[in-house]
Formats: sequence, structure tokens, C-alpha cells
Amino acid sequence: MIAKTPPMGWNSWDCYGAAVTEEQVLQNARYMAEHLKPYGWEYVVVDIQWSSPAAINHDYIPFSDLCMDEFGRLIPAKNRFPSAAGGKGFAPLAEEIHRMGLKFGIHIMRGMPREAARRHLPIEGSSAFCHEVANPNSICFWNPDMYGLKCDLPGAQDYYDSIFRLYASWGVDFIKCDDIAREYPHCQREIELISLGRDHSGRDMVLSLSPGPAPLEKAEHLKTWANMWRITDDFWDDWKQLRAMFERAEKWCIHAGPGHWPDADMLPVGALRQCEDPESWTGFTQAEQRTMMSLWCMMRAPLMIGGEMTKNDDFTLKLLTNGALLEIEKESWAGHPVRTSQEECIWVAPRKDGQGFYVALFNLTEETRALKFDLSDVEQEGPRNAREVWTGQECQGVITLQAELAPHDAAVFRVD
Amino acid sequence: MIAKTPPMGWNSWDCYGAAVTEEQVLQNARYMAEHLKPYGWEYVVVDIQWSSPAAINHDYIPFSDLCMDEFGRLIPAKNRFPSAAGGKGFAPLAEEIHRMGLKFGIHIMRGMPREAARRHLPIEGSSAFCHEVANPNSICFWNPDMYGLKCDLPGAQDYYDSIFRLYASWGVDFIKCDDIAREYPHCQREIELISLGRDHSGRDMVLSLSPGPAPLEKAEHLKTWANMWRITDDFWDDWKQLRAMFERAEKWCIHAGPGHWPDADMLPVGALRQCEDPESWTGFTQAEQRTMMSLWCMMRAPLMIGGEMTKNDDFTLKLLTNGALLEIEKESWAGHPVRTSQEECIWVAPRKDGQGFYVALFNLTEETRALKFDLSDVEQEGPRNAREVWTGQECQGVITLQAELAPHDAAVFRVD
Amino acid sequence: MIAKTPPMGWNSWDCYGAAVTEEQVLQNARYMAEHLKPYGWEYVVVDIQWSSPAAINHDYIPFSDLCMDEFGRLIPAKNRFPSAAGGKGFAPLAEEIHRMGLKFGIHIMRGMPREAARRHLPIEGSSAFCHEVANPNSICFWNPDMYGLKCDLPGAQDYYDSIFRLYASWGVDFIKCDDIAREYPHCQREIELISLGRDHSGRDMVLSLSPGPAPLEKAEHLKTWANMWRITDDFWDDWKQLRAMFERAEKWCIHAGPGHWPDADMLPVGALRQCEDPESWTGFTQAEQRTMMSLWCMMRAPLMIGGEMTKNDDFTLKLLTNGALLEIEKESWAGHPVRTSQEECIWVAPRKDGQGFYVALFNLTEETRALKFDLSDVEQEGPRNAREVWTGQECQGVITLQAELAPHDAAVFRVD
Amino acid sequence: MIAKTPPMGWNSWDCYGAAVTEEQVLQNARYMAEHLKPYGWEYVVVDIQWSSPAAINHDYIPFSDLCMDEFGRLIPAKNRFPSAAGGKGFAPLAEEIHRMGLKFGIHIMRGMPREAARRHLPIEGSSAFCHEVANPNSICFWNPDMYGLKCDLPGAQDYYDSIFRLYASWGVDFIKCDDIAREYPHCQREIELISLGRDHSGRDMVLSLSPGPAPLEKAEHLKTWANMWRITDDFWDDWKQLRAMFERAEKWCIHAGPGHWPDADMLPVGALRQCEDPESWTGFTQAEQRTMMSLWCMMRAPLMIGGEMTKNDDFTLKLLTNGALLEIEKESWAGHPVRTSQEECIWVAPRKDGQGFYVALFNLTEETRALKFDLSDVEQEGPRNAREVWTGQECQGVITLQAELAPHDAAVFRVD
Repeated sequence: MIAKTPPMGWNSWDCYGAAVTEEQVLQNARYMAEHLKPYGWEYVVVDIQWSSPAAINHDYIPFSDLCMDEFGRLIPAKNRFPSAAGGKGFAPLAEEIHRMGLKFGIHIMRGMPREAARRHLPIEGSSAFCHEVANPNSICFWNPDMYGLKCDLPGAQDYYDSIFRLYASWGVDFIKCDDIAREYPHCQREIELISLGRDHSGRDMVLSLSPGPAPLEKAEHLKTWANMWRITDDFWDDWKQLRAMFERAEKWCIHAGPGHWPDADMLPVGALRQCEDPESWTGFTQAEQRTMMSLWCMMRAPLMIGGEMTKNDDFTLKLLTNGALLEIEKESWAGHPVRTSQEECIWVAPRKDGQGFYVALFNLTEETRALKFDLSDVEQEGPRNAREVWTGQECQGVITLQAELAPHDAAVFRVD
Repeated sequence: MIAKTPPMGWNSWDCYGAAVTEEQVLQNARYMAEHLKPYGWEYVVVDIQWSSPAAINHDYIPFSDLCMDEFGRLIPAKNRFPSAAGGKGFAPLAEEIHRMGLKFGIHIMRGMPREAARRHLPIEGSSAFCHEVANPNSICFWNPDMYGLKCDLPGAQDYYDSIFRLYASWGVDFIKCDDIAREYPHCQREIELISLGRDHSGRDMVLSLSPGPAPLEKAEHLKTWANMWRITDDFWDDWKQLRAMFERAEKWCIHAGPGHWPDADMLPVGALRQCEDPESWTGFTQAEQRTMMSLWCMMRAPLMIGGEMTKNDDFTLKLLTNGALLEIEKESWAGHPVRTSQEECIWVAPRKDGQGFYVALFNLTEETRALKFDLSDVEQEGPRNAREVWTGQECQGVITLQAELAPHDAAVFRVD
Repeated sequence: MIAKTPPMGWNSWDCYGAAVTEEQVLQNARYMAEHLKPYGWEYVVVDIQWSSPAAINHDYIPFSDLCMDEFGRLIPAKNRFPSAAGGKGFAPLAEEIHRMGLKFGIHIMRGMPREAARRHLPIEGSSAFCHEVANPNSICFWNPDMYGLKCDLPGAQDYYDSIFRLYASWGVDFIKCDDIAREYPHCQREIELISLGRDHSGRDMVLSLSPGPAPLEKAEHLKTWANMWRITDDFWDDWKQLRAMFERAEKWCIHAGPGHWPDADMLPVGALRQCEDPESWTGFTQAEQRTMMSLWCMMRAPLMIGGEMTKNDDFTLKLLTNGALLEIEKESWAGHPVRTSQEECIWVAPRKDGQGFYVALFNLTEETRALKFDLSDVEQEGPRNAREVWTGQECQGVITLQAELAPHDAAVFRVD
Repeated sequence: MIAKTPPMGWNSWDCYGAAVTEEQVLQNARYMAEHLKPYGWEYVVVDIQWSSPAAINHDYIPFSDLCMDEFGRLIPAKNRFPSAAGGKGFAPLAEEIHRMGLKFGIHIMRGMPREAARRHLPIEGSSAFCHEVANPNSICFWNPDMYGLKCDLPGAQDYYDSIFRLYASWGVDFIKCDDIAREYPHCQREIELISLGRDHSGRDMVLSLSPGPAPLEKAEHLKTWANMWRITDDFWDDWKQLRAMFERAEKWCIHAGPGHWPDADMLPVGALRQCEDPESWTGFTQAEQRTMMSLWCMMRAPLMIGGEMTKNDDFTLKLLTNGALLEIEKESWAGHPVRTSQEECIWVAPRKDGQGFYVALFNLTEETRALKFDLSDVEQEGPRNAREVWTGQECQGVITLQAELAPHDAAVFRVD
């Protein structure tokens, strides 16, 4: 099974936008291998526009030339990914990352390059041609490069098969497919074709759908055809967005399970926006970062670090290597909120092994606040022993969990 | 805490409509005490129109006279509830039921009788008068008797306090308040006043709100102010309605917890509609009844029997006394669906004590169907032992649960 | 034909609310007969609550007693309308007003008194009873007195026939029926029953429906069953409401015609709100009053004066007796806007006799503004002669109409 | 003033789709000059895809090459328009049509060719380049060729100026701009730029916007910036569509006036769909064609013949040369419906010269039906003389107009 627990890794978008280079990818991979791997972090994902020689920041450049093979499949821009020279694609980079014991992922847009259709290129392994299956009226509203496909033509599946065959040959382990997760109903069939293309390749590749919000009423379709899918639009280091995630988390939490994970987007921690400003740092307070990590774990969302990791300070590294917290991602199930008000939110998550459960307390206000939670509110008989994962504080024989929390801060108890 | 686990009992509506009599209530109470009480059944609830001397079936009679005290509070019609004679209200009946070791409940409409306002009656324990707090423009669209209250006047709380004081003096344990659960936003404040009226009485009375669908976005308000609330309109013995409950159950399941239970309405089993036809029997197949009981238990919905119990056949009695199933109501938590398609639905619910979990398989099709579920789909390592609650079948060392299910049938496994 | 041109008259609401008395009605009738009648003003209408002995201002008094005959038909409160004593109803007042050469109108609510249903009164001329045809769930949301009728029962038509028979016997010429014009779709059938009740009476009575906004898509139904219907909610002396009327006028103008007139509500001019404050005067500027009168005439809306007329100052009297303007109500057709911007609005209306046309210029801004209009914009060849109706200014041989207008002011040209 | 009365002419779409040739255009122009010109018909309009060498029917061919000049402006395909050879564009064809005393029009799509952006072509007369002002996310959903423009960049106006300069140099008199009239709000600014481009050219060119339905609430914007705009989606020879036009006509009629005309689309009469089937003929009955012509004239919609005129039969030619009917387009104003039911519709339109008025009666049913209309219903005193325009029947001294009409037929009376 692919993605038996929520995928954990790093993604280049938050720090390098559309312009990440091979060397930047590698330096983060090396950091991950050295510092994070023991805690479950493993995916290294190159985000959007890796086929564009011209990208320099978070912007897209309309009508610029993308690198493409003779079958209309995008390939890495050699000026940014030198190891791709000689038609090798991402194979050398993937191999290097695999050598570190990590996994390699890439971003794709749904559809095919507009230029492939304009040039009437053949589809690899098919008698169809690109211009026959491109749908000139199915476009992305924020990226100028691609056409969606005419999904009821057999050649459309052929095209998706051809690109996943290429990615499998490169050794790709993770595909973040863009312009698709919120595009129901018109992209529902296209999701199926992409998922089948992945299957036909024979290689295990996590299929991640972006951007959100994906529609809740399509939960079962998403669970069937994808391994993770975004539940909001792009998430950045802004309290309002973090605050709003509680509502989305509540709606989606029951849909988390092995092989299918609602995705709350990258973790904007540490050094962000490096392509625009090397001094840029997350705008989240430490309390807010604890809240984010706690919520993502309690809902079992995938964890994808967004910052340039080699610049991590001590706080950030510790944040990302809190084993007691990260264990929730692996060992809990059925996590859900039990109380939600304007001021506070409380989540509970049983352990799958029956050895107790987790309780997270969130202070949503702008003031320091004492939160408490009676174990009887989840019908658990006390007294019990508990341990708070951020402070390490032990509580013996309690019937009420308590925490004095700074504004926007969180506490997470493991109750035995 | 009131309603620490989902309330279980009997309600007079499905069999007697607006016309139930004291003798009918008592014969059902006696049956419950004798046959059902050991399994957790305890509430005996008299539904709507008990103050109307004229009611004969499920209909309401506009402009008929209701029995009322001098403070505009409805009292039982003596022709139907003889023990209420002499101003004793429901106290004698409640006492009789308490003697059986059971609890007693009644139905109320929000607001006050129109006649109380018209007659400018005083409010008991208050300087306000009925006509001052009645809101002639807040009416029920299906029952002609009542006005809602002007909830920002202090006299409105006084009126609700006065009726709950009366109910407490009678020994009432359960209030089903009608014309309110789906009436957000205009009844939001009225819910609070009613809940406070209950609290001010000093007596533990379950507060149940009807009819549904209550709005999902008001879940926290409902959890705060009520003990149970309807999640659909009236539920009857019709597969379409049962089929539709799966969607509602999915949306509401995370909101079930001690003191607050989403309510899927009465169980239309056995002898129904007795006031119209003494031969009337549930239209549900036995398979459908198993599905209903299984779903209600997995979502921890309150269980209120709708049929005339003294006519129960052997199947019905066994259905209502399946201890292994009913245990789910008490011992599980965090139950939720893990797979939902047009053809089948699968729910899982951990036990609170960590000793295993429950898995329910539902066949939603019109054909016999083999369902199976890999324990790895909920990340549970096998092999495990399991026992199916309807058949009693034991499975040793399995990694996949399986059941051959008749159309609309269900299987529920306890996995150790 | 009833209401061959738009009805013109006076209504008691704006100055006396729910509390007008016979003497107040008569003093206004005498004023109309003396000063306004030659200009086409003729209806004198007693607005809401004339059956309530207790009304003192614009408020309604819930649960107060209304005067009613033995058939559940409301009759005038004798303390306010002394001539109604002895069961004569409004007959003596109507006769007095007829003697002045004027016409008499009354307000009614749709439906029947709640008390008539509660008391199970018989319906005059019918075998049905009030409580059988009252619909306790069809109520007005702002007035506490009435129930709508169950319109598919024959007794409902009987009840409406019975009240119109009474009104005809009194000599009523105009019925303003309330709580109905915006109550589509559920009151559509009730409108028909009321209209038929009027027809069955055999007496010519204008049928006017309130309040608005009536739905535009029901224009043909309204034209078929009523003589006038409100196109907005209550209109008062507030520029925002007057400004907003331009949009409604544009939508409704093509539906004005003999026997059916979109109604822009009363003219709040002169002495208003007398029941609350005898000093109260219209808040409209003189310019705004010219704009209101001009727009109402160009769209051929009914004209109902709202002020206590005996207090009219010279300006108000002249406003209401501008013969050149009021002629538009009688002699134009097909009036409609030809230009509408945020700053100005221009209407044109041909004369039915082919002898030229009218052009109205409206300054909607807060500044003095020069407006002009080329006759070629309505394909009229010039040069032409024109006369402005408010200033009397004559323009000879013009091809462009021009006016320097104060804020919110209007000019209306008759072009020969 | 451009389009002082509603434009009348011929358009190639209904008979030749995307594939019309110069010879086909000329044969229709010659027919018009000879048979129709005296009745006001004058525009000859070449519809969509004249720059495509490959078009053969009503379809668009994605990713095919369009003819374009070095500034990204589309030019006629020489294989279809031989006179365009040598860079002459449509100038020779326009000249030929002008020589016949007629006017020449062309279709355009909003925006610029995608190919012009991809090739980074310069904009004529501007320092901007095509790819700078093309908006790759503003596309048409049914035609694959164009990008809309980024309307807040100055270069966008430059591009529109450049194409209208070219059209003016060719002698174009009429522009039908497509993919725009129903694209509010996002195309509102683009409409203004196109209108200004037309103005800047210095040549009188009617600006017609397609397709509909344009939004009614944008009537004033449309009146300000365009000469005609579509009020429905494409109109074909189908009674349901014709029936539905009555509702649209009612909503839009007051917005017809010199320079600005709501457009009910082409008249699908005679020989249609010639590019697919030379035998194809209008599916409208003769009665329906009379109804269509009568309604279009009463609402003063532009008249654009859709059929291949050289194949006109006697009926069709007479239909298009009924001078008494067509006079309504020129001489009426303020036309509007006065009665509209499921069974019939009646319109009235005064003459601008005050010499009487027109009344049209429409039978909307499937049965022969006797319609009548009292002149008093529009407050016209009788008796009057009238003449029916389709039959020529004279009525002397009538007060009621009457017609026995076949299913879907119409009668139009001129009343003196």
C-alpha cells in the first residue's frame, strides 16, 4: 500500500517558488538525511516549473518556452538541473536522493503543454497525436502553459500513461498534480485517468492533488483515486489561515486513513521565500508553529516542510524532530474535535494499539488562557497518567488535563 | 452528567400518534420493565398533544381546546390520562413508571398556547403576562396551537422556568421539545432559554430537540445547549429514508459524545400506526432492521422504540435485546465511516477501553453481496479474532473480515 | 372599467397610522372636495385597524379585541367611527363622502380574524364555518390579528364573498388588501379568491394589493386579478427610498395600463405622522417632491396623498394641483426611461393622442447639474416647441431640451 | 449617429457556418441589392473564421493555422477570399459591396490570436508586444483561437486600435464582436476598449456584441458602449426558441432606441445550413416566420437574414419585403407587450409621428385561435380605422381588433 501513514517530507515551493535548482534540492535532501530521517521524514519534492529555463521566483512567465521531449512530455531545464543533460531527465537526481535513503517527488500540471498540441506532436506509445487529445477550452486560470485533455478519447489515457512511464523510468516516488483537486466536476474523469496512468506505470508513486479546497462531497472519489488532496487553497504563515484550518480539519478528519490523507498543505516554517529575499523567515510565532504541528498531527495530515532546511535554527529543528508528537501521525486513528468554540478547540485521538489516547488543547485567543479538559468528557475513567509532548511534563493520576497556554499555543497530552 | 451515554427508550408517536392514553403508556412501560430494561432501555416518553381531549390519530385539530392551568401551562387531558385528575398532572403516571425502575418523558412544543396569550393569563412566579411575551408572528407551520416567545423579554425566561418547574414537580426525566431543532437562526435564543429553564428547575431532565434536520454548522451550539437533536425530518419504515441516513450519520458522527447525541429519530419496528390500523406492522425487512440498529449503534444515536411493544414478535424482541450490539452504544467512541460507495458502507468504532474495536459492513444494494474488509485498511495488524454480533459467528486469526449479506443487510464484528 | 387611469386620492396611514378617526377622515375629505377634486383626486381611504377600539398610533396591539359581526367580519370600532353605531358599518361615512362627489375606500388584511376561527363562527351565506376555512399556519409576520384561508375549500370563497357583500352594501369604492402582494407563491390563489369576491359583489371597487415588492415575474397575474399592486416595501420621506424607486419604475413601467397599475406607494408630503407628533412634516426637500411627483406621473403610478391635507402649506397645495403635470397620468402612455446613470435619469412618454410627448429629466446627484436631452435621441425631428411643467418656461424651436437642476430636482417638458 | 434605426442585412453564419467564400458573399450581396435594398436591407456580414483556410462547415478546428499579418492581426484566408491576395485584406470585397449601394461587415473574436502571443509579435503603432497584453487565462470556451487582453495595460488599447485601423482602411461598416456580450463582469472593460478602438478609427462602424444572453442589469453599459447586443444564445428555426424570445423581448424592449438595439439574433429563413446540406430549409412554418418577423419589428430588433438568399422562394422574398411591416422598425417607438399569457401575447407600439399606432396579436398555442383586442385597453378612443399588414385587410370604424390566427401565427394592425 502506498502512503500507509501520512507522507512526510520537504517541498521546494515555499522557499524557492518556481525557480528551485538541483543544488538547492540536494542540500535540503542532505540535511533531511542527516537530521530528520530518523523521525520519519523521507520525501524530497521539486515543485512547479522545473521544465522552465527562465523561472526566477514565484511567478509564471506566459508564452515562455518549456523543455519538452519529442512526445510532448516536459523534461527538466538543464540550466537548473544539470544532471538532466543528455536526455536523462530526473533519473540522476532521483538516484542521488535514493542513495541517501530518501524518496524523490516532482510536481506536474494536469494536461499537456499547449506547445505540444500546437506542434501536433505524436504521443509516445500511441497512434494518437497531442493536438487530438488536448482540450483548448480546458485551461488553468493561473498558469499559462497547459491544456487539459479530452478525457473521453483513448489517446488521453495514452498521454497520461506516457508521462507516468517516463516518471517511473526516472525513479520518481511522489507526484504532486496541480490544477485539479478543486476542479470538480469537470476534472473528475481527468483525476481517474491520471491515477490509472500512475497504476499502469507499475511503480509505487504517491499521488497528491492540488490545489484546494477539494469539495467535501467528493471525499469518496478522492479516497479512491488519490493518496492525498488539498483541503484549502495555498497555506502560508498567517494566523488567519491557520485559524481557518480548524474548521476544514473538522470537516475532513474522518476521511484520513491508510492510503488516503486530507492535505492541509506545506508547513511554512524557518527560512521561506528565499528566491525573493534570503532573509525571509516564517511569520508564525513559536506558539503558532506548535499549534500547526499539533493540529496537522491530530488530523493526520501529511507533513511537508516548506522552509530551506539548511537554515533551520534550533527551535525549528526541534519542532520537526519531536518524536512524541510525530508518533501521533503513525499510531493514532479516528482523531476528531470534541469541543470547538471561538476561544478554544479540543481534539482527541485514540491510539490504534488501544494503549491510551491523545488530547490536544488549542488556545485560539489573543490572551494567555487556562484550558482544561475532563477525561469524563470522553467517557474515560480516571485517574490516569499523562505526558505533555511539547513540555515533557508528566501528570500522574489526573482526571482533568490542564494547561496554561500562551495566545495561539497548544498542548498535546498522551494519556496512558 | 445527563445522558452520559445515548438515551434508550420508547416513544408513543409511531404507534399512537397524537392520541396515546395512559393505559397504553403503562402497558408499554410494563413490557419494557420486564423484557428490555436489562439491556439499557429505560425512558418511556409520551409524545405530542397529551393536553388535547379530542385527539384520535396522527392529526392535529386546529382551534380545538387544550387543557391548561391558570398560568397558561398545558396539562394532561383527563379523558386520556385519568390519573391527572385533581390537578395532579403527570405526577401519578411518572411515579408509577419510576416504580418500575424506568424514567418518564414528555413532549412539548416550544412557546406557549395561543389561548394563554389571548386570555392574558399571568405567568406563574412572574409579574409578566402571557400576552406580553407571546410572539404572534413566531408560529409553527404544522401545528396550530402555540406561539413562540419574544426571547429578549425577561418574561420569556419566566414562562419557560414556570413550565419546567411544573414538569420537575411531576417527576419528568426527559423533555422532547418540538418545532425547534431546524428553526435556526430564529430559534437559537429560544433553545437557550428552554435549556436554562430546564437547568433552573434543578431536576435532571434530558433535553431532546426536534424535528430535524438541525443545521450541521450549529453543532457546537447544539452540543452546548441540548442533550440530543434530530439530524433528519421524521423517520419512518422506508428504505429510502434509511439509505439517506448514512449520509447524515457521516456528517454528524464526530459530534456524538457524553451529554450530546445526534438523534436519528425513533426506530419504527414492530406494530406501528395502531391508532389508524391495529394490523399495521413495520415495512422494514428483517435485514433492514438489522442495518438500522447497526448504524444507530455505530454512530451512537439515541435509541427510541416506536412500535407498540406488547405486540412484539420474537424477531423484534431479539432485535431489541442483542446485548453484543447494544454494548457498542456504551463502550465505543469515535465511530465513523471508512468507506462509502453507492453499493456498500463500512464503519469502524474503537472501544473506549482499548480492547479492540467494531467494524460494521452494510450492503446497500438490492442483491446479495459479499463484503470484505482488510484490517490493514484501518492499520490494524493481524491476525485477529472477531465475533459477528447478529449471527454470533466466531472468526479466529483473520486479517480480512467477510460477510455474505442479503440486500440491505448488515454485519457487525467485534474485533479483539 | 375600474381604474381606467391611475387612481388618485388620500390615505390615512402616513399621518394617522392605525388610529385614524371619522372626524379626521372627514376633514380631509372636505379639503379634497374643495381644493383637489378638479385635478382628478377622488379616493378617500381609511387604512389599517379601523376595527380596533384601542389603536393609538402606527403600532399593532397583539391579542387585543377587534370589532366583529356574528359572521366573523370586522366592523368599524364605534369609539373611532361613531356613525357606525347600530350596525351601520361604514355606510354613513361612505354616503357622506359620496355626497362630496368623492369615493370611499378601506383597508383590509387578507384572511379572517383569528378570533372568528377560535369562536367557530358561521360564514354568512354559507354552510361552512370560519374555523373550517381558516389556515392557522398562514399568518402575517407583522400583524397579529388574522389567519389566511385554506383556498382550496369552497368555504374560503364564501367567506371572501361575504365580506365583499358587506363592503358593497356600505358603498365602498376601493379596497386596499394587505399582507398579500409580495406573498407569492403561497398567496397566488388567495389573490384570485379576493378578486372574485370583489367581482361577485357586483359593485365597482378598485382592488389594490400591498405590501411590495410584488414579484416582477407575476406581472401578468397581477394585471389579471388586481387594479394596482405595490412594487416596493413601504415608502417614506427618505431620499434613498426615492432614489431606489427609479430602478423599480424601470422594471415595472411597461405593465402600467388601463385597469392595472404598478403602485409606488403613498406620497409622503406635508404633515405626516400626526398620531405621533403634530409638528411632523415631510423630510423631502421641495426638489425631491418635484422628482417624486414627476416620476410617479411618468410611470403612471397611482397617486395617494399621505399627509394631513388640512395642514398643507402653499407649496404642497401647488405641488398637488399642477394640472400640466397631472395631465400626464391621464394622457400619456408607454412611458419609460431612455437613459439611466448614477448621475441622471431621463424618461420619455408619448401622448396617447399623438399630440407630442413628455420628457422628464432627473438630477440624481448632490450637486446642481445641467441636464440636456437631444430630441434626436428619441428620433424626433426638430425643431420643436416645449413647455416645462414646474416652471412654466416655454422653449420655441429647440432640438435639445435643457435644464439647470438643483440636487435631486426634476424638470418635465411637454414637447408639442 | 450610427445605427439610428435597427440595422438590417444578411449574415453568412446560418447558411455557411465558418466556411463562407467570397463568391457566396457576393451572390447574396447582389441578390440583396436587386431585391431587398429598397426595403431598408443594407448590411452584408461575413461571419466567423474568415482567416482560416481550413474551415469547411460550422465547426472550429483547434490548433489549425490562421492567416495573420506581422502585427498579429487576422487577415482573410486567400483560398476563400481571393481578392484579399497581395495584402489587400477585405478592401476589394468591401469596395465591390459598396458599389452595389450596400454596406460591409465582418465578425471578430475579442482578443488576439494565441499564435500572435506565442510568436511575441509587435503591435502595430505601439511599443508593446502581443505577448505582453495577451491574457492566457482569458479564453473563449467554444473557440480555440484567441486570448483576451489584459485590459489595464495600455498596450491592450493599442492592439484594439490597430485592428480597427486596419478594418477602417478596408472600408468595414459593421463589426460583430464575439465571445463578449454575456461575459460580464470580466469582459466589461474589454467592451469599452473595443468600443474606443472603433471610435479611434474615425470610421462609422456598427458595433454588435455576441453571444447572449447579455445581462439585463448591464443595459445602460451596453447602450453606452455598443450599438446592438444579443439578448439570447444562438437562435435557430425551432419554435421553443421563438416562444422563449417573447419573455426576453418583454424584458429588453424599453432599451431599444437610436444607436442601441437589443438583438434577437439572425432570422433563420429560407435555405439554411448549406455547408452541411444544400437541401436544408428553415424548419419554421410560414406562421412562425410571420410571428418572428412581427415580434422582431415590434421590439425593433435588428434584422439579419440567415438564409442563402438566392434560393429564396416566393414566400420568403415576400416575407422580407413586406413594407408595411418593416416600416414599424423605422417609425415606431416605445413598443411593448400589453398582455402576455400562456396562450397569447399582444404588443402595442405608438408611431413616433403621432399618426396612430401598431398592435400585434400572437397566437402562442397549437390550435387556431380567435384573438381580439379592445382599443380601450390602451385607452384609445374609437372607432378607428386599421389595416392588417400580413393580409392587407382593412377594418373601418372598429373598437376591437380581431384575428383568427393559425397556430403560432401573428397579425399586426396599423391603427390610424
